[in-house]
Amino acid sequence: LKKSNDQGNFYYDTLQDRYEKARNSAKSFAVPQCGLCTFYWDDDNKKYKAKAFNFYCFPATGSRELNISPYFLCEGKSLEFLIQNGFNFNEWIEKGIPFLRSKEEQEVRERLTKIFDSEIKIDDRNKEFYLDFKAQLDDFLQNSPEKTLIVKAPNRYLKKIIHQQVRKLTNGFVSTESISSDEIRLTKLTEEEKYSYRTKEEKLADEINELIGFRKVIDYLILAKKPIVGHNMLLDICHLVQGFHSDLPHNFTNFQKRITSLFPTVFDTKYIIESTSKLREMFVSSALMDAKKTADNSIKECPDIDLMVIPDDEDVTSKNYESLELCHEAGFDAYITGVLFVKLSAFLEENIDNEKELLSQVTEYEPNKLSIYSNELYKKYKNRIFIMQSDMSYISTIKGKDGKNNNNNNNNNNNNNIIFITIK
Amino acid sequence: LKKSNDQGNFYYDTLQDRYEKARNSAKSFAVPQCGLCTFYWDDDNKKYKAKAFNFYCFPATGSRELNISPYFLCEGKSLEFLIQNGFNFNEWIEKGIPFLRSKEEQEVRERLTKIFDSEIKIDDRNKEFYLDFKAQLDDFLQNSPEKTLIVKAPNRYLKKIIHQQVRKLTNGFVSTESISSDEIRLTKLTEEEKYSYRTKEEKLADEINELIGFRKVIDYLILAKKPIVGHNMLLDICHLVQGFHSDLPHNFTNFQKRITSLFPTVFDTKYIIESTSKLREMFVSSALMDAKKTADNSIKECPDIDLMVIPDDEDVTSKNYESLELCHEAGFDAYITGVLFVKLSAFLEENIDNEKELLSQVTEYEPNKLSIYSNELYKKYKNRIFIMQSDMSYISTIKGKDGKNNNNNNNNNNNNNIIFITIK
Repeated sequence: LKKSNDQGNFYYDTLQDRYEKARNSAKSFAVPQCGLCTFYWDDDNKKYKAKAFNFYCFPATGSRELNISPYFLCEGKSLEFLIQNGFNFNEWIEKGIPFLRSKEEQEVRERLTKIFDSEIKIDDRNKEFYLDFKAQLDDFLQNSPEKTLIVKAPNRYLKKIIHQQVRKLTNGFVSTESISSDEIRLTKLTEEEKYSYRTKEEKLADEINELIGFRKVIDYLILAKKPIVGHNMLLDICHLVQGFHSDLPHNFTNFQKRITSLFPTVFDTKYIIESTSKLREMFVSSALMDAKKTADNSIKECPDIDLMVIPDDEDVTSKNYESLELCHEAGFDAYITGVLFVKLSAFLEENIDNEKELLSQVTEYEPNKLSIYSNELYKKYKNRIFIMQSDMSYISTIKGKDGKNNNNNNNNNNNNNIIFITIK
Repeated sequence: LKKSNDQGNFYYDTLQDRYEKARNSAKSFAVPQCGLCTFYWDDDNKKYKAKAFNFYCFPATGSRELNISPYFLCEGKSLEFLIQNGFNFNEWIEKGIPFLRSKEEQEVRERLTKIFDSEIKIDDRNKEFYLDFKAQLDDFLQNSPEKTLIVKAPNRYLKKIIHQQVRKLTNGFVSTESISSDEIRLTKLTEEEKYSYRTKEEKLADEINELIGFRKVIDYLILAKKPIVGHNMLLDICHLVQGFHSDLPHNFTNFQKRITSLFPTVFDTKYIIESTSKLREMFVSSALMDAKKTADNSIKECPDIDLMVIPDDEDVTSKNYESLELCHEAGFDAYITGVLFVKLSAFLEENIDNEKELLSQVTEYEPNKLSIYSNELYKKYKNRIFIMQSDMSYISTIKGKDGKNNNNNNNNNNNNNIIFITIK
């Protein structure tokens, strides 16, 4: 919920300085929405197909017992900016997808285990109460035709003992439910009922699974090892890691290692433009919407891109952004970034690749899949993130900036037909 | 935007500890809404009339030039709680009343003065440009029948010089307006036009006046010196001062001094209940809504209260809460607090005041104005704020807890007919 990261940057900042600023921002502010757009190559029709998604992400809170209490900073101007661009805060808070990082998930689970697994000692004063209760339970199980039994438990401590002892003594075949301030109802369960019955502990565990929410998407993104494309993406990728995966390391070198292991192939379209003299001449501005417009006007020889809309499946709706003139939804920006990447790449493959240079003068353009994995030209863009107003032109996501660490990985990446994924 | 202040309080906290917790909370979190309710005595009809107000307050941001950039913390659960109780975050951000404290207002004004008043030196390189421009201006003023003149100004520095010199040389009788990246239009103004013309600087000053916004209400509240009534109001009053008046002092004694000077008469209905044995017996719970219900059922002999609705004046609408069963709007809570205060006070005046005790057994109840200013019984409640779970029962807003400092003030308070104001 911070508007931009370009305040307080100085020309002579070191990479560590720049990274720290992005890191501090990612640690303090929430990510209210996350845009993703997948691109795959449709070889029959010789075009790309894109699916764009805009996720409202609201930090997991959950039941009181889980004791999850997320805090985050807001910048007044950023809230106003989002509202002006159609962001719906009520919907965000009410219906936003929760998310819980692995670390917090572990902490909550451990807290719950402690609460439920620590056996409560029955002290001498309550021994009589317990023996009396146990006699009732035995009678209920062995002699009673009734399905339920209500027992007295005058305080919370004794209630806890009953919940725990019943579970232990009946191996889950009797459920317990607190029905008033001093009464618990025991219910005999059939095999089937026992299977579907959820104890308080199990219900809370179910809830935690739900609360992981959007993190699952990011986990898949990490597993997929597809090229990740962004535009001016330093802050975006910091937010992605900090918000949904793990605390960003203090040290810039460790940050590079982290990114390399999570996202072995990263492209930044702003860096591609700014670092290529032919493109810098062509593009007056490398701001996302300006760059997209220039690319639309100047780069005609490139594959078509179909934005897919899935109206029948409301749960997984890919967005239709074609009709929108301008929109600041993250999903829209992700889509635009992908279109820009395809156009820039097509231009580079046509014009920079020396072998092709002569041919392209005479043959007619035929749309084809970008050769991200095979073409050498991508090496000088791979894993370099744009940084602005600096005497250094990029941040490498690879330690030592050699850009060669991950060639082995990449060759294994064609396990399905998604070619790359853009983030915002 | 924090849900409650009852986390992390310990029984043996000192008053300084308690105050610091409330202070930290008030410093970090924003107040999204502020509820006020005014009560005045209608002597003709022998009843109280109440006007309730609920203000959405969004920290002032304003134009880029003002460089106001408010930050605040949010707690996820608090946002959810507010949404569930009907709070509209979109409206808050889009239409919330801005507010700017005196300190920040001063800072912005000084910044602007610096920008506009510092005379820009015309260096030697630009002397020729300036002399040429001045000749044009003289000709325009003395010889030209035209009302406007367009002059060239190739960069921002030269533009600034023109804006400043024209204002200085023509004493405001010519307006300047930048119409393109290198042109400025000068326009001759008549006496009348000059009066209504606002320079950039004046427009920004106007904007600052607008941005003060809700602070004006609090300034009036402080000027009015009416009794302020709250329910469990430590955090509320901290937010009121920190958010709309001034940074809360570190030291608890200084906090007492600050409150005494701003709000010389303060009552806390929760403290009134908890500190009075007759009331503690009567009230099972002193939570606001519970207490209101108990008071409705148990205290029948008290003045009626009419909640006024002003449907014709949409700008200053007093809210109609009578029809609502339960509502967590701050304005509603303020109204309920006031009703509770009237009932508690009426009960105390009838039952605790010894002189009346015998009479009240035989005569019929006649509604009358509460004798807040004259009746001795209020002394033991005045300027004492409830603190929960503590071995001390209240926080005094008066240093040394003597509660006598302000009698002189209070006698001068009857300058209009508002008797007290509740806050939430």
